[in-house]
Amino acid sequence: MSIQTLKTHKTFAGQTRFHEHESGLTKTKMKFSTFMPAGEKPKGCLIWLSGLTCTDENFITKAGAQKFFASHNLMVICPDTSPRGLNLPAEHDSWDFGSGAGFYVDAKTEAYKDHYKMESYITEELFNIIKTEFKIPADKISISGHSMGGHGALILGLRHPQKFQSISAFSPIVRPTACPWGKKAFAGYIGNDESQWKSLDATELVKSGKKHSYKILIDQGTSDEFWKTQLMTDDFDKACREFSQSVEVRYQDGYDHSYYFISSFIESHIQLHSQAL
Amino acid sequence: MSIQTLKTHKTFAGQTRFHEHESGLTKTKMKFSTFMPAGEKPKGCLIWLSGLTCTDENFITKAGAQKFFASHNLMVICPDTSPRGLNLPAEHDSWDFGSGAGFYVDAKTEAYKDHYKMESYITEELFNIIKTEFKIPADKISISGHSMGGHGALILGLRHPQKFQSISAFSPIVRPTACPWGKKAFAGYIGNDESQWKSLDATELVKSGKKHSYKILIDQGTSDEFWKTQLMTDDFDKACREFSQSVEVRYQDGYDHSYYFISSFIESHIQLHSQAL
Repeated sequence: MSIQTLKTHKTFAGQTRFHEHESGLTKTKMKFSTFMPAGEKPKGCLIWLSGLTCTDENFITKAGAQKFFASHNLMVICPDTSPRGLNLPAEHDSWDFGSGAGFYVDAKTEAYKDHYKMESYITEELFNIIKTEFKIPADKISISGHSMGGHGALILGLRHPQKFQSISAFSPIVRPTACPWGKKAFAGYIGNDESQWKSLDATELVKSGKKHSYKILIDQGTSDEFWKTQLMTDDFDKACREFSQSVEVRYQDGYDHSYYFISSFIESHIQLHSQAL
Repeated sequence: MSIQTLKTHKTFAGQTRFHEHESGLTKTKMKFSTFMPAGEKPKGCLIWLSGLTCTDENFITKAGAQKFFASHNLMVICPDTSPRGLNLPAEHDSWDFGSGAGFYVDAKTEAYKDHYKMESYITEELFNIIKTEFKIPADKISISGHSMGGHGALILGLRHPQKFQSISAFSPIVRPTACPWGKKAFAGYIGNDESQWKSLDATELVKSGKKHSYKILIDQGTSDEFWKTQLMTDDFDKACREFSQSVEVRYQDGYDHSYYFISSFIESHIQLHSQAL
């Protein structure tokens, strides 16, 4: 695996870096950013999955999180939100499907299945990069994300509980099978057979008995314009309670869907993952 | 004075806001961002001046500073770096002159004098907005900035010491009369009579006896590509020592010119201004 480092910026005594590599799974170049604390080997790594329209840059630039990763001696790695540099059918036509909107699933439709393998990319290829290139033990990796990336963190964490020690999310899309963003994405990536969608929906996964042993932390702003129509956070909360998945959903009064919200509460997410790791 | 609020994002229990108003001085619309802590009236306000190519958005998005403004109960206000929406000669031809590069001076050249009045805009119009719109007492205002904005903070602080209780800067252009960025800007805004430039140069101001009663704090990264050729931080350091201006220049090993650097040390700048206010 040959990984190129494109940029390095010293940050809180550690290093914020931007990387690129040839992915065997997406058959494209893939970018990701990292923050590596200074000093001794980090005690673990958090994978951060970003939302619609984002790249590997949003979180590392806007969340104000490096201070807390440094103080907890944790690494963070932020992959891009889709393959890039392709020209698949309808890939660049809208901001909520295709490029910048990979939804962290392995596509099955003819148009997308050869490249949009984001679940395998995160749980296998990126996971292996964390182990081999950054020398983090396989049992010291957790996952978090925002919006579409919150959906990603929940489904990847619930589908691969042995790989991720803890899960958290900001404003996650918890019922993609029932909201416009998710329906559009799943139709395009998975196809029209809706029975195939359920195992990629966090709420349905919990209802089917999938579990994670560590408490899942979710922050949801009450002034988030997408809360009721796209995110449906409450449904996951309810399913977890019904199916005995430990969860803490914090409804944060007056906060919206932006990185200003994330920056306000990221410290407690990092603290949770630090405890789990 | 009619100020429009374009966007509001709850952040660390306070409010990050983006504003716009008609400026009587620049005769254009001017934008600025603010963070206002929650609860009781803030005890003061920091004016943050950004660098070349920046807008009112860079600091408030990337510095990770709201947490510390909230904990010190301080407001911050971040003006844009130049007038916008004009089409003056050569205004949009390069990134280091004209739009996005106002240099915080009042232009005297024919082409620019009617609009590029950034010194007066900051020290009078924005200063008055802070007092009247945000109800901050006139003796509770300090100033800081980065690069071109560090130059702005130093010259405005030294030229108007009664208006600003404390001054700090990251990677400031301390000798614009002697570096390529500054020479280009001053030739374009002030004209070719270089004797007119000196009173707009922080190092020359200190050498001419201008002083501020509060210790000036400067952070300078030693891996900053512009340090020796454009910023010349050491010359200000030396002039302050020679002319008994209290200064602390911290040469931060391995840090560059980016907001990753600023985010790493902004807490101590806010602490300094909090003490002064």
